Amino acid sequence: MKKQIFAAIEAGGTKWIVSVGSDYQTAEQIRIPTEHPDITLAAARDFIHAQIQAQGEIASIGIGSFGPLGVDPTQADYGIIGNTPKPHWAGTDLACAFADFSVPVVIESDVNAAALAEASSLIPRNDGRLIYVTIGTGIGAGVADNGRVSNGVHHPEMGHIRLPKHPKDSYAGHCPAHGDCLEGLACGPAISARWGADLSTLGPDHEANDIIAFYLGAFCANLLLSYAPNVIVLGGGVSLTPGLIERVRQHAFDQLGGYLGRFASPEDLHQVIRTPSLDTFSGVAGAYLLAHGAGYLEGL
Amino acid sequence: MKKQIFAAIEAGGTKWIVSVGSDYQTAEQIRIPTEHPDITLAAARDFIHAQIQAQGEIASIGIGSFGPLGVDPTQADYGIIGNTPKPHWAGTDLACAFADFSVPVVIESDVNAAALAEASSLIPRNDGRLIYVTIGTGIGAGVADNGRVSNGVHHPEMGHIRLPKHPKDSYAGHCPAHGDCLEGLACGPAISARWGADLSTLGPDHEANDIIAFYLGAFCANLLLSYAPNVIVLGGGVSLTPGLIERVRQHAFDQLGGYLGRFASPEDLHQVIRTPSLDTFSGVAGAYLLAHGAGYLEGL
Repeated sequence: MKKQIFAAIEAGGTKWIVSVGSDYQTAEQIRIPTEHPDITLAAARDFIHAQIQAQGEIASIGIGSFGPLGVDPTQADYGIIGNTPKPHWAGTDLACAFADFSVPVVIESDVNAAALAEASSLIPRNDGRLIYVTIGTGIGAGVADNGRVSNGVHHPEMGHIRLPKHPKDSYAGHCPAHGDCLEGLACGPAISARWGADLSTLGPDHEANDIIAFYLGAFCANLLLSYAPNVIVLGGGVSLTPGLIERVRQHAFDQLGGYLGRFASPEDLHQVIRTPSLDTFSGVAGAYLLAHGAGYLEGL
Repeated sequence: MKKQIFAAIEAGGTKWIVSVGSDYQTAEQIRIPTEHPDITLAAARDFIHAQIQAQGEIASIGIGSFGPLGVDPTQADYGIIGNTPKPHWAGTDLACAFADFSVPVVIESDVNAAALAEASSLIPRNDGRLIYVTIGTGIGAGVADNGRVSNGVHHPEMGHIRLPKHPKDSYAGHCPAHGDCLEGLACGPAISARWGADLSTLGPDHEANDIIAFYLGAFCANLLLSYAPNVIVLGGGVSLTPGLIERVRQHAFDQLGGYLGRFASPEDLHQVIRTPSLDTFSGVAGAYLLAHGAGYLEGL
């Protein structure tokens, strides 16, 4: 039987990755800067059209997009980008933008798509719960539960939760809505605004490392106490800082205060708080799962 | 067709309610103080035996219990109470304690059971997500998602998450493990330890009301940003304080900072942050759903 062909899109706020093929490892893909939606969407469509000529018809399109974004297929705002500060993108209808291909278009948040892919890679039989967190220009998180995205009334907006302030941190925060929410304190721009450089440039001895790890550790501890996931994956640019994840594990362990019996030492967090197993491909791999899948969105 | 009879138990840290019948409204029930497990369990069994004589055989037993508690039927610790500070109860095996009845025993945390019952009462077609929070001797929360309990590796332990401190609150906190986690700051004993009385006795003008509402409001805001539930139900003794829930809604609204478009004013939170619809019966009603159910625990 001939392999099915899909289009998979990681629609980021800085760049889009558009991939056409049967899986993310062997597919053809391009990277497009995120400009005015008219330009970016046209470039994505052109690439898909060209790949259809080369590879044959596609069965469906999966999109993992920056948000906020309507992700409930039963609602009128499904696939429509919400109130983003990114110029021109608020109100963009991603489903309509790809309607001309006349195939199902499955749309989720970028971090939910990444969570699906990491769960499928990291959890045996995909029988468990994984939270994918990106710490970069912003902070976002997605939840995969037994192989499915787990949204409530909307996709998670966990970047904006409140946590205790680090005792040495007097920064008022970077979030236009909340000031010192998690994103306002620990996203890439909040680091640059406080210390004039990113963590890797500041070097491992700079106190910024401990302050950022404190916030991410407290966030992980709160997630372990609430969602009780099998795995938390920390992705995004800030997470690539050498040595950061070890500090995050230590802070999470300290904040748990021995309360969860399954963590007797910080080493017990090594397989639970970790970096992406799919390197930088979590998003695209997740978009393929959305495209294949429709499986998890019954009745689509 | 004859109605099926069940036993339903709300196993609290202070009292047990044991109910036998076909639903919580028409059943026979007793209230037993929580003493040494040998005494409490024997009293519960005796009542069920007597009711079987009067009403006929039971089909199953549902138990919503205080925790921590093993709730995964595939694990060896299923139905066993974990490391509780309550004397003599750690290690108590609730499944074995009722094995002599030779019927299925379905066991969940008390707050997960209450969440199931409130969701079934409050969410049309039970097609959504509800979080039940109890604020009393401790703070705990359970999650019902589309009519099913939503646990991860273990049941939620959300009472122990960390939140920002209220600027006027210098209390070090009441939790033996964490000091100033949510439970350590806002449970009943933390209120009495700080101000020498409960909120209702202190009266509505005492600053304690605003401080406790601040923590519960921040907790609700974090829940709305992460789980995005349709409804958050605030139960337990502290939640009965007159006027408290209005203050909690206001603080939650303030902390959201306009970020979630569905809440344009604090009034939009009235149907979302609310008191129990089943009065004090959420726990027992949930235990009946567990007993009926097994429906949601496939393969039990």
